Formats: sequence, C-alpha cells, structure tokens
Amino acid sequence: MIERLKRQLEFIREIDKVKEIFRHTKLFNGSRVENDAEHSWHLAVMAIILAEYAKEPIEIDKVIKMVLIHDIVEIDAGDYIVYTDLRDEKEEKERKAAERIFGILPEEQKMEYLNLWEEFEKRETAEAKFAAALDRLEPLLQNYYNKGGSWQKYKISFEQIYEGNKHIEEGSTILWEYVQDMLEECKEKGFITE
Amino acid sequence: MIERLKRQLEFIREIDKVKEIFRHTKLFNGSRVENDAEHSWHLAVMAIILAEYAKEPIEIDKVIKMVLIHDIVEIDAGDYIVYTDLRDEKEEKERKAAERIFGILPEEQKMEYLNLWEEFEKRETAEAKFAAALDRLEPLLQNYYNKGGSWQKYKISFEQIYEGNKHIEEGSTILWEYVQDMLEECKEKGFITE
Repeated sequence: MIERLKRQLEFIREIDKVKEIFRHTKLFNGSRVENDAEHSWHLAVMAIILAEYAKEPIEIDKVIKMVLIHDIVEIDAGDYIVYTDLRDEKEEKERKAAERIFGILPEEQKMEYLNLWEEFEKRETAEAKFAAALDRLEPLLQNYYNKGGSWQKYKISFEQIYEGNKHIEEGSTILWEYVQDMLEECKEKGFITE
Repeated sequence: MIERLKRQLEFIREIDKVKEIFRHTKLFNGSRVENDAEHSWHLAVMAIILAEYAKEPIEIDKVIKMVLIHDIVEIDAGDYIVYTDLRDEKEEKERKAAERIFGILPEEQKMEYLNLWEEFEKRETAEAKFAAALDRLEPLLQNYYNKGGSWQKYKISFEQIYEGNKHIEEGSTILWEYVQDMLEECKEKGFITE
C-alpha cells in the first residue's frame, strides 16, 4: 500500500513541472503567456460549464480527466504551436513522454491515463472530440479578448486559423458557429493580419 | 440560446483572474509562489489519482468539480493564510464574491456551483471532507519538498501545522497517517522552526 501511494505522490510531484511549460497564447487580459497547468484548469472548468453543447452524448468525467492530463507530456516534449508542420516530430516526442511520466504511476493507473491521453490525441470518440474543441476554444477566446495576441505575433492568417480550428465542429456545432462569428469580427476589427 | 452561451463565456473570461491570485506556498521546486489556477488543477489531478484513499464512498466527479471551483471566490476576497484568526472576515468576503462571480452564470448553473462551493466550505459531506484533505495535502507536500517553504517564512510552529491540518483525517485516514510521518520527518530535518 505505502509503495503504491509513494508512486502516486511521486507522479503528483513530477507533474508540478507542467506549471513551467509556457504556451504561445496570453491570458485573457494579455498580461503574460499562460502555462499548461492554468490552461488545463481552465479547460476542465469549461468542460463542466459548456457540457450541454457537446455534439454527441458524452461522459463528462472522462472529458474532464482528458483535459486535466492532456498536456502532461509537454514536460518532456515542450509546447508546439498549432500552426506548425512538425507533426511527426511532436508525436514521437510526446509518446515517449507519456510512457515515462504516466509510467511513474502504479500499472493499472498508468494504462488508464496512457489510454486516455491516446484517445484524446486520436480525436475519434465523442469525448475526445469535445475535449479537443475546448482545447481550441480557450486560445481563440484569449486572442479575441487580447485583440489578436499570438495571431499577430506569429503572423497567422485567417485561413490558417480557420483550418486549424474547424475541427471544433466535430465536438460542438454550436461552439463552432459561435467561433466563426467571432473570427469574422476579429477580421473586421483588424486583429488578424491580412 | 446565444444569450445563455454568452453568460457562460463571460464567466469563463472572468475566472481567468484566478491565474493572478497568488498563494503563500511555493511550487514543489521552490522557484516561485503558486497561483490559484495551478493549485486547483493540481488538486483535480490529485483527486482522480488518489480517490481510492477517501475515507467514505465518494462521487469523484463532485470532488473534482469542488476543487476546480473552490478558489474562484478569491478573485474578490484574496488568499488568506490557513494559520490565521480572520475567519469571520474571510467568510463574509467570500460569500459576497461567490454571489457575484457564480451569479454571472445562467440561474441553474449559478445555484449548482454556489451550493457546491458552500458544501466544500462546510466540510460535512464525504466529498467535501476528501476535497478539503487534498486542499491541505498539496501545500504540505510543497513545503516538504522545498524544505519548509512557507512554514519558515511565516514562522509556523509544528503545533500550528498539526492543528491546521488534522482534519485531513476526516477525508482520508491513510493520507493523514502519511502526512503525520512526513511532518515528523520535517521536524527532524529542521524544516519547521522550533
């Protein structure tokens, strides 16, 4: 028992590093970039508040678990910007990271969270699609509220934003409709570089 | 529908401020103090990993929701150190904050989260007791790993730590036993001021 608890607490200590992995998007007030722990917390709250907008029936506790752990792999693999062509490199690094970090846990918990992380990455189940929609929605809202934020900094075009986020529709038709209106407004207001 | 979604997204924007409420305890590596969003994320992961140690049967999704939203009131009320005698002032400020912030949500969600926050504060149900145990465990682990951290800074005695944390036992006998051993080790190693 005590050996099992020690492994779990070692995992809890290890994941503290998520607080020092910085993302490309800034807080809603634009004061500084966000870290992965803050981002994951925000997604979990979004999951419980916005659950009614999921396109298909979902097990909400599975969505919450997914968003809570989805970025833990970035402790080893770092944060990649969404609008990138380094997909293969990212996948390889993240898989190794998942094996190492979830591997700290007792065997059956390791398997549960490794499977959950893979399910999130594959984006095939209703829960993974909704979790992915939330994962895209938060930075879009941030860029909207801080007038273009990371889109301006990395010179991301309207088409790139649209392509990189249109899978929100797979998780939630309503949220995707809302986002499309928001993006049009961003274009009109000059938040997105032409 | 759109009016409802707008209120929910306004709440999601408002709670971004939780990322700028700083606690008294430092990260596990001691590099800087932690903020409430990071802390809440860590508690939610601890809830799913350590659920098996709850003293009574618990609904885990309720515990997760509780820890995700428990510190949102600190946007208005600020963070109070646990070892303080300002309990009445704290309660009054936090109640007003809860009314204002959860009040941004549609009525039935407002009531759900206001009730959940009150349940957490009262610490009477199995879920609230376990959530409270986790809320105490995280800073204890942090102070252990960074060799005394906030105990040293605020000159907190062994008796104060023991008294302020013994309610962990109400949520988890096993975690409280573990903590007692850890505190003895901290005393022996000089992490706690005599």
